Amino acid sequence: MSLTLAAIQCAVPEGVLPDAQAVRVMSLIDQAADQGATLIVLPELITAHYFPQYQATPENLQRAHALAQTLPAANPNDFTALLHQQAQRRHIRIIASVYERTPEDAYYNTLVLITPDSQVAATYRKVHIPDDPKFYERPYFALGKGHTTWPTPDITLGPMVCYDQWYPEAARIATLAGAQALIYPTAIGWDTNESSKEQHRQREAWITIQRSHAIANMVFVVACNRVGTEDGLTFWGSSFIAAPGGEILAAADEQREQIIIAEIDQTRIEQVRAIWPLLSDRRPGVYQTLSCPMPPDR
Amino acid sequence: MSLTLAAIQCAVPEGVLPDAQAVRVMSLIDQAADQGATLIVLPELITAHYFPQYQATPENLQRAHALAQTLPAANPNDFTALLHQQAQRRHIRIIASVYERTPEDAYYNTLVLITPDSQVAATYRKVHIPDDPKFYERPYFALGKGHTTWPTPDITLGPMVCYDQWYPEAARIATLAGAQALIYPTAIGWDTNESSKEQHRQREAWITIQRSHAIANMVFVVACNRVGTEDGLTFWGSSFIAAPGGEILAAADEQREQIIIAEIDQTRIEQVRAIWPLLSDRRPGVYQTLSCPMPPDR
Repeated sequence: MSLTLAAIQCAVPEGVLPDAQAVRVMSLIDQAADQGATLIVLPELITAHYFPQYQATPENLQRAHALAQTLPAANPNDFTALLHQQAQRRHIRIIASVYERTPEDAYYNTLVLITPDSQVAATYRKVHIPDDPKFYERPYFALGKGHTTWPTPDITLGPMVCYDQWYPEAARIATLAGAQALIYPTAIGWDTNESSKEQHRQREAWITIQRSHAIANMVFVVACNRVGTEDGLTFWGSSFIAAPGGEILAAADEQREQIIIAEIDQTRIEQVRAIWPLLSDRRPGVYQTLSCPMPPDR
Repeated sequence: MSLTLAAIQCAVPEGVLPDAQAVRVMSLIDQAADQGATLIVLPELITAHYFPQYQATPENLQRAHALAQTLPAANPNDFTALLHQQAQRRHIRIIASVYERTPEDAYYNTLVLITPDSQVAATYRKVHIPDDPKFYERPYFALGKGHTTWPTPDITLGPMVCYDQWYPEAARIATLAGAQALIYPTAIGWDTNESSKEQHRQREAWITIQRSHAIANMVFVVACNRVGTEDGLTFWGSSFIAAPGGEILAAADEQREQIIIAEIDQTRIEQVRAIWPLLSDRRPGVYQTLSCPMPPDR
């Protein structure tokens, strides 16, 4: 079984408001569907500038909260409502990252699977949340309770969000639960004050760690980043789709809005697992310290 | 604090018997010491041809067992005894991979830390053991009971052996226990019948997964492989030393015997961890399935 998957690498241009940005995104989705994609991945929180680059003062928090939406959408102009119309019109599925407000007024960085049949076919709330310069995410996002998989008729997806990409634990947990493709919508970039050597190192590390999840778990990996500069933070693009052997099937550059497309052929998973049965050779009996709150020897 | 580390990439040439091979290895160690290395890593089981490429018939098993030694050495010509003399003579430490026979006649693929003061300063028995074409290791090697670290006066080492390199779990466990450098003596190669595309993929995957351990854990990684062809199995060399940010500090080619050397500066670990505090942002509370014998959803 196989499917055609697209990742849309795009920017949030200066001065473009969420409604206009949604129109831009819909147009990119149309282009991806025109090219035959039936499953389309968007970058993290792509309707607006990346607000967690600012520390969460009351004003900043309030401004960010104004961008949040409920799931399903309360308003017909909310991003997931518009995407659902698009999914129905084009007979496609969309993986969208949204800033979710719960009825209890909790706020999550949430991934949503949107199908022609459902605006909220499945959700995942970001588990690993950074709190560093330019990525002050903790006050904006409550912690997701755990990893999950999304079984669909043709593929089981392992939904992840950005910072999750640095955690081999996350990739493994989703794989053990049956994921065949790990999906990483992302908003990652350089501080423009960094040396170009350090910028290069960070981007290389980001590609390498995600390729390694494909290799260690023998699954597909989709990394979908934004591009463009927002107030001293330059998103480095470089979105890619990797096969279960670690091969790069499609890759975008560092700066342009680009749609990358690949054929996801699940039979490749079993082929690679037959060469090196890494999963069945695991030794879970010696892995207990991985879930210890405080490592015993430290 | 820093130290100069060398990895010796070498072959077991056709027709060279273990005693002559040990002499060759001692000469390479001398060369590494001459270049200032104080900690020297050897490839996996480097005194003889890689015997697990043959299925463990009684004859093959007997032939392999004849290569094993006790720890400490029972015989002054055993590999670790010779290495210990060398360590004393050159005031160096050596990480050696040996085929260990216990007093109870169990056989392990064991890593030994040899210092001027001790022939067996620390040991580690390979935890992940493959059993695939050309790597029929299970009947030759009993399973190690778990991962460990080797604290030394200037660095804490995370000893690993070959196949362990494919397991992010292993790298993480050693890191959580304080490892600052993960050491992977290796004997990995291509079936010479494989397509060059598949050969390239495997080598790329091998480099990528080990670099990813440096990145995910922000530790040094030393991969030390053999070279040369032994009966249809070509070891692909490509030994390397990576820094905690994933940077390659030194790398060998695919075919030649080579000594690679790098300065291991532990302050780099804290620098990188300060940029991205990946370890403290882990969510061990959601990692329980990693140590489940049978994943619940599978």
